[in-house]
Amino acid sequence: MTTTERPVVGIVMGSDSDYPVLEPCIQTLRDFGVPFTVEVCSAHRTPEKAASFAGSAREVGYKVLIAAAGGAAHLAGAIAANTTLPVIGVPCPSTLNGLDSLLSTVQMPAGIPVATVAIGSAGATNAALLAIQILSLSDSSIEAQLIEHRKKMAGKVAAKNEEIRRKLSGA
Amino acid sequence: MTTTERPVVGIVMGSDSDYPVLEPCIQTLRDFGVPFTVEVCSAHRTPEKAASFAGSAREVGYKVLIAAAGGAAHLAGAIAANTTLPVIGVPCPSTLNGLDSLLSTVQMPAGIPVATVAIGSAGATNAALLAIQILSLSDSSIEAQLIEHRKKMAGKVAAKNEEIRRKLSGA
Amino acid sequence: MTTTERPVVGIVMGSDSDYPVLEPCIQTLRDFGVPFTVEVCSAHRTPEKAASFAGSAREVGYKVLIAAAGGAAHLAGAIAANTTLPVIGVPCPSTLNGLDSLLSTVQMPAGIPVATVAIGSAGATNAALLAIQILSLSDSSIEAQLIEHRKKMAGKVAAKNEEIRRKLSGA
Amino acid sequence: MTTTERPVVGIVMGSDSDYPVLEPCIQTLRDFGVPFTVEVCSAHRTPEKAASFAGSAREVGYKVLIAAAGGAAHLAGAIAANTTLPVIGVPCPSTLNGLDSLLSTVQMPAGIPVATVAIGSAGATNAALLAIQILSLSDSSIEAQLIEHRKKMAGKVAAKNEEIRRKLSGA
Amino acid sequence: MTTTERPVVGIVMGSDSDYPVLEPCIQTLRDFGVPFTVEVCSAHRTPEKAASFAGSAREVGYKVLIAAAGGAAHLAGAIAANTTLPVIGVPCPSTLNGLDSLLSTVQMPAGIPVATVAIGSAGATNAALLAIQILSLSDSSIEAQLIEHRKKMAGKVAAKNEEIRRKLSGA
Amino acid sequence: MTTTERPVVGIVMGSDSDYPVLEPCIQTLRDFGVPFTVEVCSAHRTPEKAASFAGSAREVGYKVLIAAAGGAAHLAGAIAANTTLPVIGVPCPSTLNGLDSLLSTVQMPAGIPVATVAIGSAGATNAALLAIQILSLSDSSIEAQLIEHRKKMAGKVAAKNEEIRRKLSGA
Amino acid sequence: MTTTERPVVGIVMGSDSDYPVLEPCIQTLRDFGVPFTVEVCSAHRTPEKAASFAGSAREVGYKVLIAAAGGAAHLAGAIAANTTLPVIGVPCPSTLNGLDSLLSTVQMPAGIPVATVAIGSAGATNAALLAIQILSLSDSSIEAQLIEHRKKMAGKVAAKNEEIRRKLSGA
Amino acid sequence: MTTTERPVVGIVMGSDSDYPVLEPCIQTLRDFGVPFTVEVCSAHRTPEKAASFAGSAREVGYKVLIAAAGGAAHLAGAIAANTTLPVIGVPCPSTLNGLDSLLSTVQMPAGIPVATVAIGSAGATNAALLAIQILSLSDSSIEAQLIEHRKKMAGKVAAKNEEIRRKLSGA
Repeated sequence: MTTTERPVVGIVMGSDSDYPVLEPCIQTLRDFGVPFTVEVCSAHRTPEKAASFAGSAREVGYKVLIAAAGGAAHLAGAIAANTTLPVIGVPCPSTLNGLDSLLSTVQMPAGIPVATVAIGSAGATNAALLAIQILSLSDSSIEAQLIEHRKKMAGKVAAKNEEIRRKLSGA
Repeated sequence: MTTTERPVVGIVMGSDSDYPVLEPCIQTLRDFGVPFTVEVCSAHRTPEKAASFAGSAREVGYKVLIAAAGGAAHLAGAIAANTTLPVIGVPCPSTLNGLDSLLSTVQMPAGIPVATVAIGSAGATNAALLAIQILSLSDSSIEAQLIEHRKKMAGKVAAKNEEIRRKLSGA
Repeated sequence: MTTTERPVVGIVMGSDSDYPVLEPCIQTLRDFGVPFTVEVCSAHRTPEKAASFAGSAREVGYKVLIAAAGGAAHLAGAIAANTTLPVIGVPCPSTLNGLDSLLSTVQMPAGIPVATVAIGSAGATNAALLAIQILSLSDSSIEAQLIEHRKKMAGKVAAKNEEIRRKLSGA
Repeated sequence: MTTTERPVVGIVMGSDSDYPVLEPCIQTLRDFGVPFTVEVCSAHRTPEKAASFAGSAREVGYKVLIAAAGGAAHLAGAIAANTTLPVIGVPCPSTLNGLDSLLSTVQMPAGIPVATVAIGSAGATNAALLAIQILSLSDSSIEAQLIEHRKKMAGKVAAKNEEIRRKLSGA
Repeated sequence: MTTTERPVVGIVMGSDSDYPVLEPCIQTLRDFGVPFTVEVCSAHRTPEKAASFAGSAREVGYKVLIAAAGGAAHLAGAIAANTTLPVIGVPCPSTLNGLDSLLSTVQMPAGIPVATVAIGSAGATNAALLAIQILSLSDSSIEAQLIEHRKKMAGKVAAKNEEIRRKLSGA
Repeated sequence: MTTTERPVVGIVMGSDSDYPVLEPCIQTLRDFGVPFTVEVCSAHRTPEKAASFAGSAREVGYKVLIAAAGGAAHLAGAIAANTTLPVIGVPCPSTLNGLDSLLSTVQMPAGIPVATVAIGSAGATNAALLAIQILSLSDSSIEAQLIEHRKKMAGKVAAKNEEIRRKLSGA
Repeated sequence: MTTTERPVVGIVMGSDSDYPVLEPCIQTLRDFGVPFTVEVCSAHRTPEKAASFAGSAREVGYKVLIAAAGGAAHLAGAIAANTTLPVIGVPCPSTLNGLDSLLSTVQMPAGIPVATVAIGSAGATNAALLAIQILSLSDSSIEAQLIEHRKKMAGKVAAKNEEIRRKLSGA
Repeated sequence: MTTTERPVVGIVMGSDSDYPVLEPCIQTLRDFGVPFTVEVCSAHRTPEKAASFAGSAREVGYKVLIAAAGGAAHLAGAIAANTTLPVIGVPCPSTLNGLDSLLSTVQMPAGIPVATVAIGSAGATNAALLAIQILSLSDSSIEAQLIEHRKKMAGKVAAKNEEIRRKLSGA
């Protein structure tokens, strides 16, 4: 557990080698003050742990689960098969640039959804934001933070815009 | 509006030709008794309507938005850019079998997530279920329905299993 | 169970809609007189059944398991994660022509192999033959059948050759 | 604004990280003396700015707009949805080598065209040249420059040809 | 020649089998009253005709050329190599669903742009609209028509919206 | 021959440049004490050797053959065509990231199976494990080793889990 | 043998199901009066026949070999490995639209070339024409036929052009 | 011209940046003593030169032409459209790993074949060997060299085999 509050987001990754991909996810949850946990837990190498973690997640108090894996990326689907909580899948880069990870994560059969985000670290950031958007439905302070976050992003774009204009006019 | 209750899920489709793809989504929401609306609204042909629909969706009382589109499928991203509600993207079949729709929907930049599901009608069913899972976080009766739904699915698999065994033993 | 002998090959399919794809697999096992069972069993809709089937398969007497699924085809991997028996994966056709099924089946992480064959019914035939080749290692009568089968195939190619020559010379 | 003349080409990029890709576009416009502006402006992070920039572009005096973005590259489509000016889309490199950027840019629905060029910096150069070709329709001095530019390119090819022949004959 | 006015748009197709793909292009040009010509002319089977058509197109009075081809679709590039007019490429469907046609048309080297639109008939419509947008830069009546056309499209979306709402409320 | 015992696994690689890919395969076989041989032998450059190696493999005492190749990767298929032993194919990385190697290895016609594993070194490890699983069917000591190996893998995942939790709580 | 003259082109196909794909190849050779033979001969089901056919082809008097196969299409490579004659590969349609057939045929390792043509019947026609071009190097009458054939193709394009103009002017 | 003899192979490349890819082609032709020329000549930047080079190639004494290009790789097709000599296409690496180059080169329409080889330098070597195989049809000394070359390749494979066995037995 990474905060003293009860964690509401559970992050699982198929291998510790996926950790760098997930760092912006972890950072974003911290920035929003959302309590979370991180597990290394493989759909293939520790299937029982994956199933039991998912199976008890709702009861334990989690609201959203995030699963990151690469290649034949079954982790998010294996988690989703064992819980009725919303599960977000992050496809990690692979020998095929993550195309296999993406298709293995997103092409789930009718009945068991995985909310899939982009391949790699952009997807990892967005997994956190999607979890936060879901949490915001019952917490207006988080909603306010999201609005603030959007403004900051727009501000950064505007700042970059100014920077490039200066560079170009000085060139 | 399709029910007398206040709608909590807003479905938008880029073209009325996407309607057949979305039918299992609509049916699933009805099965769970979730009030919803359906709009035809294009990111490209009616961009202002898409932006204003998304921009006011939270205030109006929506909890989750579902956007379906094909080809250069920008609708889910355009909706997501204008709301902090969770947005689910359904990639519709296309000349490239929906691969373009999938990549256009899922490969969002850091900052604006789209919760992407499978291409076509399996994805449409799952978009509804994902919305329902999100709604279940603050409504334990929906949670109970989801558990029931999982049991029914497992039951159908078991029934199919019996049917195939009978067919094989009689063959 | 389809024969009075103890089954040695266990076929599982993710959905009964995969049955037509598997028919040449079933027929090939019958042609070789190999006792087998067939289960409909989903990695996502009945994950516990998949895990328990795989977990007890070796003890029950199975020698080889064959798993067929489409889309985010996790079934073979989920079976393989729960047994040390050899597991053969058959990628079924899908909205993406089975490319997603193939990648989801074959791109397994180091540690848990899935012996993947071709997409669709050619793969289904070959799944049976691969299982039979494995069984032949400890049963020389099966080995003899395999040699016979190869001769028959070569004979069919020769017959087709004659037929086409006749067609061409008569044209 | 980068020149004292009224700009006729408006370049927008989804992120300042796309700037290096666009440099040959900017250089080519400068080489031809075409006045232009550059904006950082995201279809997702600053959708209103993108819409308002596009919406007023014709009135302000722009003749052609160039939009560069990567991944789920909606910028060109979002610009095109809000103007009747010709819009050129440059797909930027991505985790999938720009294939997602290309499909997101080019596969527009009937009604809203985006004139798509090659992925990356070859496309960026060609976006400028395409804009210049369009401007040349009402400006014969630009037409003369284009003819000159083609001759120079042919000359460079001939020079490279000589260089390689010398290298080979000396080898 | 299809009208008594001097044609300003020249359509070339690589094979008469591409004609059905181009029909919405032809219809759109007619709807806007833009005079055009249509040629069957192959980059591979009639390379000289393609080169001479392109080489004289500007002089003859054309403003924009549209080239449609499938497979190793070189026609647009071969046309573009021989003129400084803007050239629009329409990738036609093929054994690979038009992916080869798209890549052969869009991935042009720096120096010779082809303004590529979507695969198939959506792209054909958009080729016409893109040509019309280019023509509108020097003809305000065409600009007015484009604005009208956008309104009509938005109106159709709204009508479809109503239709679907009626269907749903009556269901 | 690499051990004093009679080899039961025969590894063939299409080129010595594939050797680094196969190293985890070789290491895994050593870890399990399985006697094996390694040959460089090309389906294209030494077709007769490939055919004669495969043709005599069963008689010589091999139980499983592993073939690794890249690009138009025919080696596994060429081996499989000349033996009734189970043949495992390892697709090696290539200019197309191994996608060509994968498809050339896995898409075998009905009649001649190749048990295909993942692209690159994960696949190489799994080729060894799959061979070991097959050998375990008639050797309960190998079965025991496999169970031990699974436990070790699970242990490593748990250790990595602890490590990441420590890192996160200390961060 | 299909003519009384000594055959100079040898066509082999991996399966009689590839025959319809090859028909335009056969017809083109007949149109040019080139004597040829056709064999059904599989790299996998009859590997010895494929090797011996190729191994004696030069001696027997063949000048060019054409091999057509689908999926993991090894036939052309297997033929090329056993002869120094030029070998032309025709990738046949497959579950993956022939993409696997194409990559399996064209991505040959340095040392053993296969002259690959387009997927399907366009490729089959071109395989014949390529063989004829090769034969024309030592037979000026064939060269004359090729020039005639090009003229006819150009004539057909011109005729189609007229037809479409008539259709359009009459519309 | 690179030798005092009359050149029989003409190599053209679309850009001097393709030169490193072609080096093994040039080296192979030198090894066999085949006189050749090299031209930089672009289908798009110097279309007339490409057409006139191809148009006069047969008359000038060339027997085989080799064309290398990347991206929308039209060079081989443009050469083939203007000659009845056999034309070999080498797809060069690109932003899409050469997949676009391959499809643009190989997917030629019925009537104008391009003999396509593998992407990159393996293909470049094979382009030379294919040209040499064609030349060998009328020159038995070249045929003898080809047989020698095959033996050398087989010898190299055998040497590598020994090396790896030594490494493994010493490990």
